Amino acid sequence: MVLLVLYLVAITAEAMTAALAAGRRDMDWVGVCIIACVTALGGGSVRDVLLGHYPLTWVLHPEYLWITAGAAMLTALAAPAMKRLHSLFLLLDALGLVVFTVIGCQVALQMELPVTVVLVSGMITGCAGGVLRDVLCNDIPLLLRKELYASVSVVTGILFVGARALDVNPNIAMFVAMGLGLAMRILAIRFDWQMPKFVYRDEWR
Amino acid sequence: MVLLVLYLVAITAEAMTAALAAGRRDMDWVGVCIIACVTALGGGSVRDVLLGHYPLTWVLHPEYLWITAGAAMLTALAAPAMKRLHSLFLLLDALGLVVFTVIGCQVALQMELPVTVVLVSGMITGCAGGVLRDVLCNDIPLLLRKELYASVSVVTGILFVGARALDVNPNIAMFVAMGLGLAMRILAIRFDWQMPKFVYRDEWR
Amino acid sequence: MVLLVLYLVAITAEAMTAALAAGRRDMDWVGVCIIACVTALGGGSVRDVLLGHYPLTWVLHPEYLWITAGAAMLTALAAPAMKRLHSLFLLLDALGLVVFTVIGCQVALQMELPVTVVLVSGMITGCAGGVLRDVLCNDIPLLLRKELYASVSVVTGILFVGARALDVNPNIAMFVAMGLGLAMRILAIRFDWQMPKFVYRDEWR
Repeated sequence: MVLLVLYLVAITAEAMTAALAAGRRDMDWVGVCIIACVTALGGGSVRDVLLGHYPLTWVLHPEYLWITAGAAMLTALAAPAMKRLHSLFLLLDALGLVVFTVIGCQVALQMELPVTVVLVSGMITGCAGGVLRDVLCNDIPLLLRKELYASVSVVTGILFVGARALDVNPNIAMFVAMGLGLAMRILAIRFDWQMPKFVYRDEWR
Repeated sequence: MVLLVLYLVAITAEAMTAALAAGRRDMDWVGVCIIACVTALGGGSVRDVLLGHYPLTWVLHPEYLWITAGAAMLTALAAPAMKRLHSLFLLLDALGLVVFTVIGCQVALQMELPVTVVLVSGMITGCAGGVLRDVLCNDIPLLLRKELYASVSVVTGILFVGARALDVNPNIAMFVAMGLGLAMRILAIRFDWQMPKFVYRDEWR
Repeated sequence: MVLLVLYLVAITAEAMTAALAAGRRDMDWVGVCIIACVTALGGGSVRDVLLGHYPLTWVLHPEYLWITAGAAMLTALAAPAMKRLHSLFLLLDALGLVVFTVIGCQVALQMELPVTVVLVSGMITGCAGGVLRDVLCNDIPLLLRKELYASVSVVTGILFVGARALDVNPNIAMFVAMGLGLAMRILAIRFDWQMPKFVYRDEWR
């Protein structure tokens, strides 16, 4: 199943970017593995807990924990060599975002939830892992501030759900949504697209 | 049902204060909507997840997501005009606190949980949304530091549960608890009431 | 049952260290109690939510909420006198870690989950409360940065699960795992053992 392969690529990619984030905070090796697992598997876990969709993915497939921890360790070992792979990382990270989003939408579709919840489920799956990583690293979550991260997830979800509603073949719907979402993300990074910001200054609270 | 109207007012009010908090952190429009939804619906979600009370409110009523996101967008658009409405905001925020608290107590009462858990359920519903907002904005949660926020929630809960235990009519119990809680909160802001602080300095850890 | 006594000692100890952490952030008394409850009972709550193991401990036994809140208040009252008890605190905190870990492993074993999940369950139970405390106090979680905290939890879990797999008497398995874990933690503090750190500097993200 191609989605499983994409999922494995996605959790590996998320684990690698998480390991670099942990390295910027001088975490020890156990911390690196924990941050990697939380980032790669946290989005799906938050979704499953909120939707009451038990058991969680990593409880059913504990091997995913080993894959993410292993990818994080390798990343920490090979970090100096990876500085040249910057573009590859951004691509893998973007792939993770759209793959997680489509998987999250599918889970909610299978539970026959309303379409708004399906989109939110996709967005949570795609984004919550990165938010947890940023909270644990004591940053303001990046997703809330730039780079169309959450917007790409919403658009990917709308494309996927829209295509499914039009009875498009599930695999085609999946690839179209992921492809266009990926393109949007890459263009956003390439041309520094940003959503308008809401800047407010008035400390009355 | 009057509680539903109050609930809608409360989530709108929480969405508006959350939007202003997001604006202080220069978040983009998607981030503003996410923070608003998390703040307005997060307290109830944390309660439902901890009590195993599925499905969550916004899964059953996805329109609440649209209401909070819409209120947040309008707030961001109208922010300059809102500086004059400072007092109204504080009042709506206080109303949200007591309404959420009473709803949280009711959910736990319907699940026939022990009275301590009922009070905690009210407090989580009233306060956890604001805590999540502060964590995502990378602040120390306000609730833990000032303004009797959590204390008002506890007192409101005790009044409501106490009145229900005395077989007071549910609606009267609700209004008495919310009214007195609201009064306590407004007096706390007006006269700058604070709980005693515990200040400790000794970095041995 | 000796494990219950150890559990009560552990939540009391965690409540006390949490109260001191809250005092360093100038929290008010309600905040101190909330932080104490989250620290002492949060690890088990996160585990139960992730594993779908309802109802949560403190819903079934609300008296644990009173014990932790009470211990936190006493700690705040007696804080000046406690500076001399530094070593006792570290010992109690270490005891809490190994006791929580063993309890977390047991819960997962009773649910007949795979061994990786059993170890993760022990680690979450042992460590997540402290992570929540640090997030609410707006720190980078200590656990991710030093003192072999998470590592001690993993080793304790492996010893316990390994001994159980070898059909060692449950009580003996428990005491051996907790004893060796405790020793490892004390030696780590005493001799400042640290896991190697992964330090990475390259702000391309």
